[in-house]
Amino acid sequence: MSRQEEEFVTQITKQNEDFSQWYTDVIRKADLVDYAPVKGFMVIKPYGYALWENMQRALDDKLRATGHSNAYFPLFIPESLLQKEAEHVEGFAPEVAWVTAGGNEQLTERIAVRPTSEAIVCSMYSKWIRSYRDLPILYNQWCNVVRWEKSTRPFLRTSEFLWQEGHTAHASEEEAEEEALRILDIYKDFAENTLAIPVLTGQKSQKEKFAGALRTYTMEALMLDGKALQAGTSHNLGQHFAKVFDIQYLDKDGQLKYVWSTSWGVSTRLIGGIIMVHGDDRGLVLPPRVAPLQVVIVPIAQHKEGVLEKAAELQRNLSAKYRVKLDDRDTYSVGWKFNEWELKGVPVRLEIGPRDISSGQVVAVRRDTGEKISIAFEELEGRLSDLLEDIQLGIFNKALRFRDSNIRTARSMEEMASIMENQMSFVKAHWCESAECEAKVKEKTGATIRCIPFEQENGSGECMVCGGDAKRFVYFAKAY
Amino acid sequence: MSRQEEEFVTQITKQNEDFSQWYTDVIRKADLVDYAPVKGFMVIKPYGYALWENMQRALDDKLRATGHSNAYFPLFIPESLLQKEAEHVEGFAPEVAWVTAGGNEQLTERIAVRPTSEAIVCSMYSKWIRSYRDLPILYNQWCNVVRWEKSTRPFLRTSEFLWQEGHTAHASEEEAEEEALRILDIYKDFAENTLAIPVLTGQKSQKEKFAGALRTYTMEALMLDGKALQAGTSHNLGQHFAKVFDIQYLDKDGQLKYVWSTSWGVSTRLIGGIIMVHGDDRGLVLPPRVAPLQVVIVPIAQHKEGVLEKAAELQRNLSAKYRVKLDDRDTYSVGWKFNEWELKGVPVRLEIGPRDISSGQVVAVRRDTGEKISIAFEELEGRLSDLLEDIQLGIFNKALRFRDSNIRTARSMEEMASIMENQMSFVKAHWCESAECEAKVKEKTGATIRCIPFEQENGSGECMVCGGDAKRFVYFAKAY
Repeated sequence: MSRQEEEFVTQITKQNEDFSQWYTDVIRKADLVDYAPVKGFMVIKPYGYALWENMQRALDDKLRATGHSNAYFPLFIPESLLQKEAEHVEGFAPEVAWVTAGGNEQLTERIAVRPTSEAIVCSMYSKWIRSYRDLPILYNQWCNVVRWEKSTRPFLRTSEFLWQEGHTAHASEEEAEEEALRILDIYKDFAENTLAIPVLTGQKSQKEKFAGALRTYTMEALMLDGKALQAGTSHNLGQHFAKVFDIQYLDKDGQLKYVWSTSWGVSTRLIGGIIMVHGDDRGLVLPPRVAPLQVVIVPIAQHKEGVLEKAAELQRNLSAKYRVKLDDRDTYSVGWKFNEWELKGVPVRLEIGPRDISSGQVVAVRRDTGEKISIAFEELEGRLSDLLEDIQLGIFNKALRFRDSNIRTARSMEEMASIMENQMSFVKAHWCESAECEAKVKEKTGATIRCIPFEQENGSGECMVCGGDAKRFVYFAKAY
Repeated sequence: MSRQEEEFVTQITKQNEDFSQWYTDVIRKADLVDYAPVKGFMVIKPYGYALWENMQRALDDKLRATGHSNAYFPLFIPESLLQKEAEHVEGFAPEVAWVTAGGNEQLTERIAVRPTSEAIVCSMYSKWIRSYRDLPILYNQWCNVVRWEKSTRPFLRTSEFLWQEGHTAHASEEEAEEEALRILDIYKDFAENTLAIPVLTGQKSQKEKFAGALRTYTMEALMLDGKALQAGTSHNLGQHFAKVFDIQYLDKDGQLKYVWSTSWGVSTRLIGGIIMVHGDDRGLVLPPRVAPLQVVIVPIAQHKEGVLEKAAELQRNLSAKYRVKLDDRDTYSVGWKFNEWELKGVPVRLEIGPRDISSGQVVAVRRDTGEKISIAFEELEGRLSDLLEDIQLGIFNKALRFRDSNIRTARSMEEMASIMENQMSFVKAHWCESAECEAKVKEKTGATIRCIPFEQENGSGECMVCGGDAKRFVYFAKAY
C-alpha cells in the first residue's frame, strides 16, 4: 500500500478510539452527506440518497401490500391547528420553525413548518370522513419535516429530515390498536430483513410516548458503541385527535361516533442505524438489499490487453440482475480503489486481471468478512445471488449476536450506573412504572426506558430503583 | 340512468359553458386534490398522488439513463445566500415565505423556505468542485418548494408544489448549452410520449426568462380553452451563479476557471396540463402510461352465480401486467360505477356479466372514444396491451390535431386582439425583439411570448407591433 492509500484509510478514526468521530469520518469520507449552510441541516449526497431510495422502495412495497395509499399533505400548518391538541403542541412547540412573512406581507397568523402532520391530516379527515363506509382510511406520505434542534448529527438528529408518516382512522379501538401493532411488525420486518438490523420491540413509557398519543410502540436497535437508537415508532392515538379535530362518522347503528386513529413513521435516521450497526474500521458495510451498489468490478492491470473488455462484459451481463459498477478509472491505483469501495461498503468486489481471464474466473471479495472466493465466469451470475443473500444474513446474525451479548441485567441503581459507565448496552431491569423512578434513573445514569417489551418471561419482581412491586421488566439504555 | 346517476355527471359544468369551473369540478369530483387550511395550499389525495408517482417514475428513469443522480438539498436557505445573485433574488423575493423563529428563539437572519434551490446548490458546488475531474456534476432532486402566490389554482399555481429540479455544472459553455437542450428534449419526449401532451419548444424572451439565467428554454402546451401552459423549463445559467457563488475548478491547463451551470424543472403543474389537454364533459381522460388505474373491471348483475368469481379471476390474471381494479361494491349501481370511473379517466373499462361469461368474452370500453369491443377471455391479456397503446397514441393525436388547428397568425395588434378575444390559441407573429413591443402586446391583448421557436421556417418579416425589422417569429398566447 502506498503512503497515499494508507492515508485514505487511516484518515478514519478507529471505532474503539472515538466512536463518534469514526461516525463523522465515515459519513463524510463515504460521501453520504455534507453539512448545509444553515446549522443543523444536511445535504444528502447521491450515494446517501440512493441508499434512502432503496430503503423507501422496500418499505413502500410493504405498506402498499397491506392496503396503504400514498398522499401528500401541505408543509405549512396554521398555529391555531397545531394548538388544538394540548399535549401535541406542548411536545412540539419548542421545535417548530415559524413562518411569519409571505413575500413582503406580514402574516396575521404564524404558520408552522410541519414538525409532523397529525394536525393538518386530522383537519382534512374531519372533512372527508362521514360514514362507516369511509373507514378505515390508511394513508401514508413520504416528505420532509422540520424540527428546530439544538444539537444535531447527520442522519441521527437534524433540523430537517426525510421520512414517511402514516395516518390512519378506524371505526373502533380494536382496529386502531391492530393497525398500530401491524405497522410495528412491518417496521420490524423491514429493519431486520431489509436493513439487517435486529430490533427490540415494545411499548414506550408514558414519559417517552409521542406527544398526544394514547400508546406508543417502538423498535429499538443497539449501536456498536452500546447506545440505543429509536428506529421507528407507531402510535395508537386513541380518540385524542378525533375529539379535538371533530372527526366523527355515522355508524351502522345510526349513531355519530368519533374515529380512533394511529400515526407512525421511520426516517433517514435509519441510515445512521445502518452505519452504526454494521460499519467497521474500514468504513461502511451496507446490507445488499439496499446498497446503492451491490457489486463493484475492479480490473487488475487494466492497461493489459483484454482486461477492460472482459470487465465491461461482466458489468453488462450482471447489470440486468444486480446494481453493478465498473471502476475503470485510470487515475487511481487498484489499492486506492479497493479502499474506496470498502469505505463505501459495497458488499462484493470482483477482481479481474489477466491471470483470472486465462483461468476463466473472477475473484469475489466479501466486504463483511474479507473472504476471497474464485468463481468461474459461467457460474458468476447465479453465485452472486447466493453470495449477496449470505452477506445479508451474515451481517444480520453478527449484529444479532452483538446485540444479544449486550443485554445486561441490573438489580440496583449502582449496577445500572456501573454498566452505563463501563459497558454501555441494553439493560433489563424491573420497574414499578412510576415516573419518579424513571426520572431518577435518567438523572443518575443517563439511561432512559427504551421499551417495555411485550414478552415478560421473567415475571414480576422488585423495582430496580425503589424496591417496590414491579409487574414488568423494561429495557433501559442511553440513546441517540 | 337514475336521477342520482344523472346528477353525478351533471354536477360537472360543461367545458364550453365555463372551462374554469369545469376544471375545478373535475379535480374535486375525481378526488385528485382538496383545498388545505392555509389559502393557496393543496392536499394531493391518493388518486392524484398515484398519478404523480407514475409520472415521477417515468421521468426519473429518463434522467438516470442520461447520467443524472438524485440528491437532497435542504429546505431552508439563509437570506444572505439568496441575495447573492441580484436578478435571482429580485425575481423570487416577492414570493418567498420567511422563517423568522425557531422554537422560542428569534433568528438573527431570516431564512427562506426554498422557492427554488439554485442558491443552496451553488453554495455546495463551490465546496465540492475543485478540478476538471469533478465535472460535470449532474444532480437532480425531487422535492417540495414554496412560492407565496396571490392567486392560486390546484396544480396550476399553488403556494407549495412538488417538482424535480436539476442542477448541473460543466467545464464549458458548450457543454452547459448542450445539457440545457438535452433536458428540453427529454422533457418534450416525456410530455409527448408519456403524458400524450404535444408541446411547442423554443427559447424564452429576455422578459420571460428565469431570474438569473442566461437563456431559458421552454415547452408550451395548448389547453382545450385555448390558453397555453408552460409545461417545463430548462435554463442555461451561464456563469452568473458560478461567479457570485465562486464555483471554480482547476482546468487541465492549470488555470482556475468558473464553471457553467444549468437548472431545469417540471412540477405537479403537469397534472393540470393532463386534465386540460385530455379531459371532456364526462371528466378526466388519463394517458394509459401514467394512469393510476389502467383498467377497471365492472361486474354486471354481480349477484348472479359465477360473475364475481370470474371478475376476480380476470383481475388476478391481469394484475401482473396492468394496474387493474375490480369494482365489486354492492352499494352502487352499475350505471353509477360507469360514471365514476369515466369521471376518474380510467382508460379501459371491462364489463363482465352472465351473458359474457357464457359466450367466453368480456366487453372492453375505451374511455377516450366510448368504443365497445368484445374480447375473448384467452385473448384479453395480449389485446389489452394493444388497446392501451392505441388509446395512448389516440389521445396524443387528438391533442395534436387540436393544437395544430389552433395556431393562428397575426400581422397586426388588431388581429392579435381579435384572436385573444374570440378564439384564444397560439398566435404566430413576427417580433422585432424589443421589450417595448412585447410589453405593448401584453398590455393590449393579455398575450405573452410563450417561446421563440428554434425552427424559423417563415424567415424574417415585419414586427407585428411596430412594423420594424423582425428576424424571427414567435408564439404568443394567454397563459396559465
